[in-house]
Amino acid sequence: MPEANRQWKLTARPKGLVTPDVLQLSASPLPLLEDGQALARVKYLSIDPTMRIWMADIPQYMPPVQLGEVMRCFGLAEVAESRSPNFKKGDKLIGLTGLQEFVLVTGRESFPFQKAPSIPFLSDSNFLGTFGLNGLTAYFGLLEVGKPQSGETLVVSAAAGATGSIVGQIGKIKGCRVVGIAGSDEKCKWIKDDLGFDAAINYKHPDWKAQLVAATPAGVDINFENVGGEVMQAVLDRMNLNGRVVLCGLISGYTREDPSLSSFAQILMKRLRVQGFIVIDFASKFMEAGQQLGMWKMMGKLKDKQTILQGIEKAPEAINMLFQGSNIGKLLVQL
Amino acid sequence: MPEANRQWKLTARPKGLVTPDVLQLSASPLPLLEDGQALARVKYLSIDPTMRIWMADIPQYMPPVQLGEVMRCFGLAEVAESRSPNFKKGDKLIGLTGLQEFVLVTGRESFPFQKAPSIPFLSDSNFLGTFGLNGLTAYFGLLEVGKPQSGETLVVSAAAGATGSIVGQIGKIKGCRVVGIAGSDEKCKWIKDDLGFDAAINYKHPDWKAQLVAATPAGVDINFENVGGEVMQAVLDRMNLNGRVVLCGLISGYTREDPSLSSFAQILMKRLRVQGFIVIDFASKFMEAGQQLGMWKMMGKLKDKQTILQGIEKAPEAINMLFQGSNIGKLLVQL
Repeated sequence: MPEANRQWKLTARPKGLVTPDVLQLSASPLPLLEDGQALARVKYLSIDPTMRIWMADIPQYMPPVQLGEVMRCFGLAEVAESRSPNFKKGDKLIGLTGLQEFVLVTGRESFPFQKAPSIPFLSDSNFLGTFGLNGLTAYFGLLEVGKPQSGETLVVSAAAGATGSIVGQIGKIKGCRVVGIAGSDEKCKWIKDDLGFDAAINYKHPDWKAQLVAATPAGVDINFENVGGEVMQAVLDRMNLNGRVVLCGLISGYTREDPSLSSFAQILMKRLRVQGFIVIDFASKFMEAGQQLGMWKMMGKLKDKQTILQGIEKAPEAINMLFQGSNIGKLLVQL
Repeated sequence: MPEANRQWKLTARPKGLVTPDVLQLSASPLPLLEDGQALARVKYLSIDPTMRIWMADIPQYMPPVQLGEVMRCFGLAEVAESRSPNFKKGDKLIGLTGLQEFVLVTGRESFPFQKAPSIPFLSDSNFLGTFGLNGLTAYFGLLEVGKPQSGETLVVSAAAGATGSIVGQIGKIKGCRVVGIAGSDEKCKWIKDDLGFDAAINYKHPDWKAQLVAATPAGVDINFENVGGEVMQAVLDRMNLNGRVVLCGLISGYTREDPSLSSFAQILMKRLRVQGFIVIDFASKFMEAGQQLGMWKMMGKLKDKQTILQGIEKAPEAINMLFQGSNIGKLLVQL
C-alpha cells in the first residue's frame, strides 16, 4: 500500500476548456480509518460532461465543487481496508470517488456508494457506463420523459456518447425510427452499422441540416437532447405537433466563457417542464370550462376590464396598441 | 341594410408594427345567400396578439393569412338574414368573423360559429374575453398545463391583458401566491387593488428585477408566460425545482423584423413539451432499470464501446476530450 494519495484539486474556475491552472495534482497522506469507515483504491474514473458544470460557480443541480477541494467525479473503487461492517476487502464500489487514487468511504455520503455485483458477462467498467448513470439516464430519460411509441421518430444528439448510444438502442427496442447526430464519420459509422440506428448525421458535414431533413421524412416526435445550441435548433425545426424534448444535456454550452445560464440551462438544472399551449386543442372541453367560469363570475371572483375602440377604421391602430402596451384588459373594436 | 361590406385585407407582410401598407380597407358587395347560409353583421372585433402571427408567413398553428385575403380575427356578429335552419335573425354568433362589417356564415367553417347564450349578468362583448378564448386560455393553460397547488407561487406576464388578468384571478381561486408583471403603474394598480394579485411589477421600472426577487421569496413554481424575451428570462431565473412554464404567448417577439422562429416559438406553435431531466431524481427506481438493462444486454440488444486512458495524470486531458468530441462511447481513466 502506498503512503500517499494523489488527488486532482480544483484550483481555479475554468473559462472555456480546462487549462493547467484549473486542476492541480498533489499528494496527501492516506487517511487513517475510524470505526465504520473503509478505504478503497480507485480503479476507474468516469469522465462525464457534467464535471464541467460542477467546476463552474453557477446555480446547478448539486453544489459546485469549491476551490481547493478534490474534483468531484464518479468512479469505481476496490476496498483495500475496512473497519465498516458493510464493506469487506475486495468489494467493488460505485460512487463519487473524486479524481484521486484512494477514497475514504464514510458511509455518510449524500450519494451513497453502491456495491457492483459480480455478473459474468459484465466487466467492472460497465458499471460506470451502460450499467451506470449513462445507462440509467438513457433509460429513464427516454422512457419516462420521452415516452416513445412504436413508429415514432427519435433524434438523439451526441449519439456516439456514453448516454446517446444507449438512448438510440433503447429507441430501436421500442420500435422507433432512430436518427443519431454525432461529430465524426467514424462515430456515425459505429452507431449506424454496429448499433443499428436508422440514420446517422455528422454535424460537421456542410449539408448536415439537409441530411437531417432527409432522414426525418415524417418529422421528429422525440428529441433526446444532449448538445443544445445550433444542433438543438435544427432538431426543433423538424419537431412534430405535441413532440417531446428530453433536455438531458447542453454540452455545446458548457465551455462558454460567459458563466450565466441560458434559458435552456435553467430548464435543465431545475428540471422544469415547459409546455407550448394553444387553447384550441381543448375545444372539446370548452363547455365545461364556460360553466365553471360563469360560476366564478357570479360569485364575484372574476373581474374584467375592456378597452373599446369605435369604428372599423380603428382596427390596424388597435392591433398595434397590443404591442405598444396601450390597452388594459380585453381590447375590442365596436362596429 | 347597406349594400357594401367594408373589409380590411392583408396587402403586405408586416415588418415590425402594422404599417399602412399592411392592411387596406376596401368595400365589396354584400354576398348573396345560398341555401344553408346566413349573413351576420359584425358588432365586435376581438383584437388579439395572435393576429400578428397570422400575418407573418412563418410555420404556425393555423395557416397564415394569404395576401389579398380579409384579415382573420375573432368577433361577435348578429345574424341579419338567414337561409340556414341553424341560425335565425338576431342570433349572436362568436367565431372567426374577420376584420369586416359583415360575415357570410356557411356552416362549413373549420372553426364553427357558436351561438352566444343570453345570460343576465354578461354583456355580449364578454363572450370575446372572459367568456371567450381569453378565459378559456387562462382556464386550461393554468389548470391543465400549470397544475397549480395551493400555496405555490404563480407569476404571470402581460398580467393586465385579457388572458393574464384571468390567469391571476384563477390562481388566487386555487390558493396560489400570484405575482403579475405588466407595463405601467396603472395596470399594476388595477391587478393588485381590483383583481387581488399579491404583487404587481412594472417591468419598465429600472429595478423591476429586484422587485421580482422580493415578490417571490419562495421562488416561482409556475410561470404563465405571455411575453418571452427578457421578462421570461428573469422569471426562469427565479423558478424552483420541478417548476412548470405554461408557454402561452411570446408577444415581445411577434413584431421582430426577423421572421424566423426562435426555439421558444417552435415550442409554442407546436405545443412541444420540453422537460429538463437529471437522472438522480429517479434513484428509487435504479434497481428495476438495471435489471431491464441487463436483460437487454444478455439478449444482445445493447452494445457499447469504451475509450480508456491510462493513469491519473490523464484526467484533465480526458475532461477536455469530451468537449472536443475526441472520444467514442464511454470515456474512462483507468488507474
